[in-house]
Amino acid sequence: MVVDASDMLSVIKSFPDQCKRALGMAKGIIVSDEITSIVVIGMGGSGISGDLLKMYMATSKIPVFTVRDYSVPAFVDKYTLVIAISYSGNTEETLSAFADAKEKGAALVAITSGGKLAGKCQKVIRVPDGLQPRAALGYLFFSMLGLLYNSSIIEVFNDDINEMLNLLSDAKALEEKGEEIAKRLYGTIPVVYSSAAFAPIAFRWQTQLNENAKYAAFHSTFSEMNHNEINSFMHMEKGKFSSIILKDSHDHRAVKKRMSICKEVMEKKTEVIEFDILGSSLLARMMYAVHLADYVSYHLALRERIDPTPVEVIEWLKRQLAD
Amino acid sequence: MVVDASDMLSVIKSFPDQCKRALGMAKGIIVSDEITSIVVIGMGGSGISGDLLKMYMATSKIPVFTVRDYSVPAFVDKYTLVIAISYSGNTEETLSAFADAKEKGAALVAITSGGKLAGKCQKVIRVPDGLQPRAALGYLFFSMLGLLYNSSIIEVFNDDINEMLNLLSDAKALEEKGEEIAKRLYGTIPVVYSSAAFAPIAFRWQTQLNENAKYAAFHSTFSEMNHNEINSFMHMEKGKFSSIILKDSHDHRAVKKRMSICKEVMEKKTEVIEFDILGSSLLARMMYAVHLADYVSYHLALRERIDPTPVEVIEWLKRQLAD
Repeated sequence: MVVDASDMLSVIKSFPDQCKRALGMAKGIIVSDEITSIVVIGMGGSGISGDLLKMYMATSKIPVFTVRDYSVPAFVDKYTLVIAISYSGNTEETLSAFADAKEKGAALVAITSGGKLAGKCQKVIRVPDGLQPRAALGYLFFSMLGLLYNSSIIEVFNDDINEMLNLLSDAKALEEKGEEIAKRLYGTIPVVYSSAAFAPIAFRWQTQLNENAKYAAFHSTFSEMNHNEINSFMHMEKGKFSSIILKDSHDHRAVKKRMSICKEVMEKKTEVIEFDILGSSLLARMMYAVHLADYVSYHLALRERIDPTPVEVIEWLKRQLAD
Repeated sequence: MVVDASDMLSVIKSFPDQCKRALGMAKGIIVSDEITSIVVIGMGGSGISGDLLKMYMATSKIPVFTVRDYSVPAFVDKYTLVIAISYSGNTEETLSAFADAKEKGAALVAITSGGKLAGKCQKVIRVPDGLQPRAALGYLFFSMLGLLYNSSIIEVFNDDINEMLNLLSDAKALEEKGEEIAKRLYGTIPVVYSSAAFAPIAFRWQTQLNENAKYAAFHSTFSEMNHNEINSFMHMEKGKFSSIILKDSHDHRAVKKRMSICKEVMEKKTEVIEFDILGSSLLARMMYAVHLADYVSYHLALRERIDPTPVEVIEWLKRQLAD
């Protein structure tokens, strides 16, 4: 079978440009800076942006919650900024949780390419349509950052943006690294490990492997995995799994030590693929690691002779649910 | 090899009694009811109690956060109740995050059997020592509920406790069900699915399988898995995985529908083990599902001729870290 995967590749290559363009998409939309918490509603490729925001705002006094369910937490009130993200605008869970947030009197913003959600919210950030939701991450996440910046909820971050764009501009290096990793994890069940702070990135790797390469894949964190999962390695069949360790320069020194010691156990049974996340600012490190997963999953799909773009089971499921 | 697993079995059987006894262990300890959020610090078998509290307090106006890291979130201040749980009292991550919370001026309570933690906190709930942390869940979780009840943070729940104890008193039925499930998932890689609300329970299943049966195991939730993971089923090798679906009577009707539709896809490649969580109150349903995992993992260990009690890799890791 010859697979034309050029469509996904060109979308992947547009990621840095998406990020840049998205920053201005919230123009004219601001929210009160007197909010006490942020709740981001979203599923799948739309929902991951909430996790990334939580990670990005980890040092803020404003807690960020993500909701992947049909309702929002009980504490949501007028001091809560609720951002509903649905690329299609028609995600069942998101529409339901959005209605719940509206009833609770939250401050509401929607990020979408259209659909029902666009008609239900006064403040809508519109992103370009026609993409797979997971391939619109640049638009979804950075338009949200633009909104929070406009509203003085997050600080100036031009230097970080520039550093990030500079790092991502070397598409050749990213693709080569991605292809190399894909080659090493080919034919295994990948489990992606990171520090607790980088868990959203490890999860993004999992879902890109699920959706682009149609691989069973999982993720977990250091050091929680030291307290349970690590036990399974001694009794594991050799070569069945691969262990991908995302190492961030800002990981706690004890986490670095744990990763290094555990590698010894993991190597006995699994291919261990560890690498240093490049970049200096948090934003650059986050987006480098996110974008690398695009290339890894794309090249894994090619090796499997699978078209990375269509997600047939999800489409089938939507039809079944509509019945 | 003949394995003497009677030790773990007797500890498992003591779970309902643990829960009952633990309720009084916070006697004399109260905290201000003027707190605005609760942060529970803990790793592994100690940390899961925080997730269970978050689940139990889902309808409360007070958000609950869990921390599995070396520090606490930036928003922690004197209005935050921080509960540090470390069964041994010497967990590296917990001691570090506890020190961070102290510096931020949080209201502090420790739950432990001793160790360094007991000496660092004015308000200590002491639980009996000599167990594996994961086997002390009854003590750790219910002593915390006792504290929150004493402090008027949660409401009267005697009826729920009674219903739960009544449900758990049928150890024979639980063990038979557990043994049946163990038989079905034997030799596979179990992936445990639940609604988003029941994610802590699915994670507890995973970790009990990791620690007691030394199995590689994973967990995920409906309906998030409908947006990514479900794609991997079509390309999966038949019989490699098993899918365990924890069905709660209070799951959203759309989640029930999704579980039922997805079963069709999952069955093509995996053994699907679905069952209804028994019980009426949330507490009874939570603890029924938690306790069933004890029996499942215990019987899976027996089938593998593995002693469920020792966790040699974790002990080895602790020695390496101490160097």
